[in-house]
Amino acid sequence: MNLLIVGGVAGGASAAARARRLSEEAHIVLFERGPDVSFANCGLPYYVGGEIAEREKLLVTTPERLRSRFNLDVRTLSSVEAIDRTAKTVRVHDLASGRVYEEPYDKLILAPGAAPLRPPIPGIDLPGIFTLRNLQDVDRIKERVDQGIKQVVVVGAGFIGLELVENFVRRGITTTVVELQDQILPPFDKEMTTPILETLLAKGVTVLLGESADAFEQAADGLVVRLKSGQQLTAQLVILGVGVRPENHLAVQAGLEVGPRGGIRVNDHLQTSDPDIYAVGDAIEVKDFVSGDPTQVPLAGPANRQGRIAADNIFGRAVQYRGTQGTAIVGVFDKTAAMTGASEKVLRRSQRPFRKIYIHPAHHAGYYPGAEGMSLKLLFDPQSGRILGAQAVGGAGVDKRIDVLAVAIQAGMTVFDLEEMELAYSPQYGSAKDPINMAGFVAGGLLRDDHPQVNVETILAAPADQRPLLLDVRTPQEFSAGNLPGAVNIPVDELRSRMNELPHDRDIAAYCQVGQRGYLATCILRQAGFSVANIGGGYKTYKLFQMTP
Amino acid sequence: MNLLIVGGVAGGASAAARARRLSEEAHIVLFERGPDVSFANCGLPYYVGGEIAEREKLLVTTPERLRSRFNLDVRTLSSVEAIDRTAKTVRVHDLASGRVYEEPYDKLILAPGAAPLRPPIPGIDLPGIFTLRNLQDVDRIKERVDQGIKQVVVVGAGFIGLELVENFVRRGITTTVVELQDQILPPFDKEMTTPILETLLAKGVTVLLGESADAFEQAADGLVVRLKSGQQLTAQLVILGVGVRPENHLAVQAGLEVGPRGGIRVNDHLQTSDPDIYAVGDAIEVKDFVSGDPTQVPLAGPANRQGRIAADNIFGRAVQYRGTQGTAIVGVFDKTAAMTGASEKVLRRSQRPFRKIYIHPAHHAGYYPGAEGMSLKLLFDPQSGRILGAQAVGGAGVDKRIDVLAVAIQAGMTVFDLEEMELAYSPQYGSAKDPINMAGFVAGGLLRDDHPQVNVETILAAPADQRPLLLDVRTPQEFSAGNLPGAVNIPVDELRSRMNELPHDRDIAAYCQVGQRGYLATCILRQAGFSVANIGGGYKTYKLFQMTP
Repeated sequence: MNLLIVGGVAGGASAAARARRLSEEAHIVLFERGPDVSFANCGLPYYVGGEIAEREKLLVTTPERLRSRFNLDVRTLSSVEAIDRTAKTVRVHDLASGRVYEEPYDKLILAPGAAPLRPPIPGIDLPGIFTLRNLQDVDRIKERVDQGIKQVVVVGAGFIGLELVENFVRRGITTTVVELQDQILPPFDKEMTTPILETLLAKGVTVLLGESADAFEQAADGLVVRLKSGQQLTAQLVILGVGVRPENHLAVQAGLEVGPRGGIRVNDHLQTSDPDIYAVGDAIEVKDFVSGDPTQVPLAGPANRQGRIAADNIFGRAVQYRGTQGTAIVGVFDKTAAMTGASEKVLRRSQRPFRKIYIHPAHHAGYYPGAEGMSLKLLFDPQSGRILGAQAVGGAGVDKRIDVLAVAIQAGMTVFDLEEMELAYSPQYGSAKDPINMAGFVAGGLLRDDHPQVNVETILAAPADQRPLLLDVRTPQEFSAGNLPGAVNIPVDELRSRMNELPHDRDIAAYCQVGQRGYLATCILRQAGFSVANIGGGYKTYKLFQMTP
Repeated sequence: MNLLIVGGVAGGASAAARARRLSEEAHIVLFERGPDVSFANCGLPYYVGGEIAEREKLLVTTPERLRSRFNLDVRTLSSVEAIDRTAKTVRVHDLASGRVYEEPYDKLILAPGAAPLRPPIPGIDLPGIFTLRNLQDVDRIKERVDQGIKQVVVVGAGFIGLELVENFVRRGITTTVVELQDQILPPFDKEMTTPILETLLAKGVTVLLGESADAFEQAADGLVVRLKSGQQLTAQLVILGVGVRPENHLAVQAGLEVGPRGGIRVNDHLQTSDPDIYAVGDAIEVKDFVSGDPTQVPLAGPANRQGRIAADNIFGRAVQYRGTQGTAIVGVFDKTAAMTGASEKVLRRSQRPFRKIYIHPAHHAGYYPGAEGMSLKLLFDPQSGRILGAQAVGGAGVDKRIDVLAVAIQAGMTVFDLEEMELAYSPQYGSAKDPINMAGFVAGGLLRDDHPQVNVETILAAPADQRPLLLDVRTPQEFSAGNLPGAVNIPVDELRSRMNELPHDRDIAAYCQVGQRGYLATCILRQAGFSVANIGGGYKTYKLFQMTP
């Protein structure tokens, strides 16, 4: 068996190691265009900031190690430039010697990854404008930073962009983020990014939303970035983090099917349209685990698992890839944002019916010191209660709850299952009613119609004269510290004795700080015959929707 | 509807609040024998140590709050002493006034909890010997500690015992733990408690296993604890943490069914043998979620959920309690131990077939600073791969992995599902191949027979002349720092060229540090025709089994 693998990082390296464990006999060649294999691409931003101090930590393994341990034929600085599917060979360009040669295969795995986009903006090729993909990129960026530059502009407020922002700020550099969309972290729903945006602003980062770079120009003190709005920014370093495109040229040249956004088409066994050629990682189109639709999700975890699965299939095991649910996480200073499954905007775009709830729990028992807050959004099917997606943002414990919900999605569980989850509780780690249980209670109550709820955006979108009566059931102190425009205040503890103050001929929307007292108020008023609903997630959810940079 | 609830802490308070949300009309009386309702019983040890500085933090809510917010008739210092099932009344003893009266009910919920055991040891009633259940107990313990005592003996190395130990040490008190079993934290499998035991010893705690208190005597400088072994300990404070028994006297007196270990019998709707009487919390017998057998599991999370479910059923909703899987967690200094589902010893006792694996991963990517180690044990069905139980011990991230596995158990997932889990990865939070994935890979490989494995205990239990050849595939440096007795060392990277040094007529057991190189070595040798297995979890698992205090 001649197994050739194109690309030596996450998916390719995983495939190679797995293949070797399955067969000591196979001749396995790992081609990598760059000088490094299997480097820690997710760690690159932290090397810029110095959190990862030693460059060699970024080398998860080396070509020498792969040779000695896995008996792999590792060929770095080797660019695979064409596939001859009839002859079953690839054409390889040895970048060091310039030699071009053919290498035969029985099976071929394509793991070429995705390349950062460099949009055709005037001046894009000026020195000092970088993307970040590999160690050579990070060396160039770090060199500039180490020179003591004063200003950086990051174009694109995605995951890598914001990770770099944190590290630039750590290095004392004045940092501006320019994002075309009206929110940071585009995979998230906008309101869930508010706490991250607030953190960026608190750290002195300038965030320009709905804005884009129209041109770059050389200036005396570095580069000038001309924005669509006419604003000009000066920077000695510009990072482009505006997305990636699958490296599909080999596949396209070989006539393999690719999807509309360029991802290499594969079946459940990760086989391309040529059964002897597999493809894995950021270059492929995958099935969205929730919707079943084709999508492209460049993430390290799926790439690694796909590499393993491709090798399994090549060596006679019929293993299926289940699809990608898009579980992702980003740390920005002391905050964490994480998500899994579908976002609200994706559900809206695909016109899939859903319901949603927000909760704002502490990550462990409030009576134990150090409890950190989070906001959690859960999206679920309005009929079955099946969980469709979740997003959380806050401090400690965000990662845990999203992982739990990722498993629940993978298991096809419903919000009713979340009510019954038995999670580890001790006051340092969680709550007797964990945030996961609370999310289940709120969502389950909604579907059982125990808990009539109205979304805060619905209220905000309605003309003032068509809004329900806004009833704030918090304490007068909380009310006076900030409330919804036009709200009246009756604390929940006084509600039973002051119901006569409320109208029977008008809809009422009750709210509190996070939704819990509002829910009780809703129960009380509803049983007394009022037309009432709770504003989901209360004042804290309102604040998520209110933030503007 | 007259709804009476006996017991005002976790289960009782949850039932009362839920009942009120379901019905504004019901008359709901909450009887509590003590002065406090809904206090933070899981936080009590941390008040002793000062981590929780203010006593009032331990009061999750107050009788006044329950009255005003939930319109509950809260009666503290009220002991319910008998049930008349025919008349449908309870007899209440008002401990403040001494008055005894009857209160009628339509539905009754028993949430009396479980009482700490006080075994009939001579001298057990001497002053200075305490159990810990409520705020009055913690006040007495803290008073002694605040007096500046020098020595404490904790009898029982369970969860509460060790939480107290940590807090005594934090207060500078010389602490000895006496445990009847040959391990600490009896719900765990012994080897998984080794890191906690090491931590206790490193903190200067004396741990006496297989030991018990035979008598207590008054002495000039406090108490003398006479142990079974003849040893004597001096202490100014003794804590008994040797287990709890369900408070079932009301149920027994009323002729309700109780189980062999005293737990009040309930059906899936948490109804006792009298359909108008429900029972919840530490007093009841529950169904073990994994085995289906009756068991008693005193945990706060299940108690809270049971309270809610009992109220649901009373108000006409047919909600089933699914059983308890025993998800539990304890922090001991900087270490965490957590478990969910069945332990190996429970599986052995019930003769249920199982297989197991150990892994020793870092809690996040090793290249990012601050990665902490953990040991994870997974128990699963040998045929289906269904997950039966899991235990983990280590630093950060233990709680997350056990919660993920708790959900997997609840969903009926298999080790093959763990291989495909898509969890949140960024280097501060996890690994592209998360410990959960790794556990799945190892366990899945075992069941697919990719990965012949032998347990380290099997090796250790065999007579020396019947052991397989022990092949250490680590580096010479690792080998010389400690190895299995009789092992030979061939580093995995040299194995392909040194196979001729190995016998074809003898079983070989390969091992490395954590199991990964041992697995590769096993693959290499097996494909070359050797009879070989990997020692599961490698040298680190061996060390877990080696520890003796």
